[in-house]
Amino acid sequence: MKIAYLGEIGAYSEEAAINYFGTEAVLIPHESFHQIFQSVEDKQVDYGLVPIENSLAGSIHQNYDLLLHHNLSIIGEQYLRIRHCLIVHPNAQIADIKKIISHPQALAQCDRYIRQLPISSTEPTYNTAGSVKMISEGSDQSVAAIASKRAAKVYGMKIIAEGIEDNPANFTRFIALATEPIQPNDNTKTSIVFSLNNEPGALFKALSVFALRDIDMTKIESRPQVGKVWEYLFYIDFIGSVLDQPAERALEHLKEYALMLRVLGSYSQHKLDFSE
Amino acid sequence: MKIAYLGEIGAYSEEAAINYFGTEAVLIPHESFHQIFQSVEDKQVDYGLVPIENSLAGSIHQNYDLLLHHNLSIIGEQYLRIRHCLIVHPNAQIADIKKIISHPQALAQCDRYIRQLPISSTEPTYNTAGSVKMISEGSDQSVAAIASKRAAKVYGMKIIAEGIEDNPANFTRFIALATEPIQPNDNTKTSIVFSLNNEPGALFKALSVFALRDIDMTKIESRPQVGKVWEYLFYIDFIGSVLDQPAERALEHLKEYALMLRVLGSYSQHKLDFSE
Repeated sequence: MKIAYLGEIGAYSEEAAINYFGTEAVLIPHESFHQIFQSVEDKQVDYGLVPIENSLAGSIHQNYDLLLHHNLSIIGEQYLRIRHCLIVHPNAQIADIKKIISHPQALAQCDRYIRQLPISSTEPTYNTAGSVKMISEGSDQSVAAIASKRAAKVYGMKIIAEGIEDNPANFTRFIALATEPIQPNDNTKTSIVFSLNNEPGALFKALSVFALRDIDMTKIESRPQVGKVWEYLFYIDFIGSVLDQPAERALEHLKEYALMLRVLGSYSQHKLDFSE
Repeated sequence: MKIAYLGEIGAYSEEAAINYFGTEAVLIPHESFHQIFQSVEDKQVDYGLVPIENSLAGSIHQNYDLLLHHNLSIIGEQYLRIRHCLIVHPNAQIADIKKIISHPQALAQCDRYIRQLPISSTEPTYNTAGSVKMISEGSDQSVAAIASKRAAKVYGMKIIAEGIEDNPANFTRFIALATEPIQPNDNTKTSIVFSLNNEPGALFKALSVFALRDIDMTKIESRPQVGKVWEYLFYIDFIGSVLDQPAERALEHLKEYALMLRVLGSYSQHKLDFSE
């Protein structure tokens, strides 16, 4: 089983892919989200895994756009807690550190921790795991990286501190992609995208199709369509499968109001206790 | 008038601040969003300006969190089209370029353009304007930066190509912050945050308070509250002021359902023709 994911070996995306697909899967790093969608579509891989939202950074609209432009289905979801570590050469100590390298977002997320260290500088890199690879390839013991525990292990480096992010409520939700939809059995969730004309009450009417059938929504987001000032895109996730009659009828009903409606997929929910 | 914004001189945030506050304002660069909120709260500056959402990257939850944790009001909004330029030393030509530096997000947004150039490498930096400052401080004519037209002008560098982003539908919405709310006159928009228990139909009831009064929403977004699995935060923008009777009554009505409700501010809409 071949899986396309974004980034270096040891990246958070790789960890999510292992958690979802298991250790037997062959993970193939890709350079962009676009390339992941293309590989799945061209059947160069069996599945793809991409992040769709982060609890601090929000929805990744680029991947919603790619879902609309490629004919793929969501077949599953995986939450991953983003827990950053300060990583150094095996023989280095915290007092040796003069520079910290990582992706700008990871550096920003550990800002408070970094500021209480006697560090002279930080330096941006392309990704967290790549920064660990960089320190492992050099011999400079004064350079530390910020990345996952897994990245430290993969490149044989030492963890000096774990969970150094300022806000521990840092989770990323990944979605698994395939060329064909699946028929999940239980704990089902469905993701849809639709558009509405921008007129008072339009969204209320659209949501009535779920409320009138007691269908529970787990996500809703509006997005103005650039270039189409009066048209909005909506992302909704709801509990249930498109194969259940209430959801099937709700979507038929929604078509009466929506300018466009796409079912992105029905799949089993990943139930994560966010307080863990 | 002192204004706090994020980043270097020549940054997109600075451009938005000039567009909103005018050229007479004294713009004071800050290193983090948290510091901007703190400066406004401590009255070290009169106003702050922060990005709240981008058409490709989505809502910036961090700034919604800061709005909830600081007692500030939104007093205005400003849209800015993000239009990236390829910038070099005044005497350099496109054929001289061997390396392109910029913020990883800007490099990613110009990926298609970069790939058709005979470039050997790209290198991440902290911000777009900073990358222009870096090339201006060096003498290496083979290094180009990706940043705004304004950044090129500020640092006296040359623009080789303009509008090089793969997706031209790239807009950022900024909000202006002050310690006191304002009383806007016309074209008013209001931003609120509220939370609801996660039960079927809860959101539908909450939205009924707007629909029943013909109040038009321009944004809605749900956000699961990490650590509180059964509680959701909602961000809503609607047309009208909290001083108008329909909106006032809608918010009174909403309090019957909401666990928490915060009015972030009523302010004049920035009407931007997104197709420009």
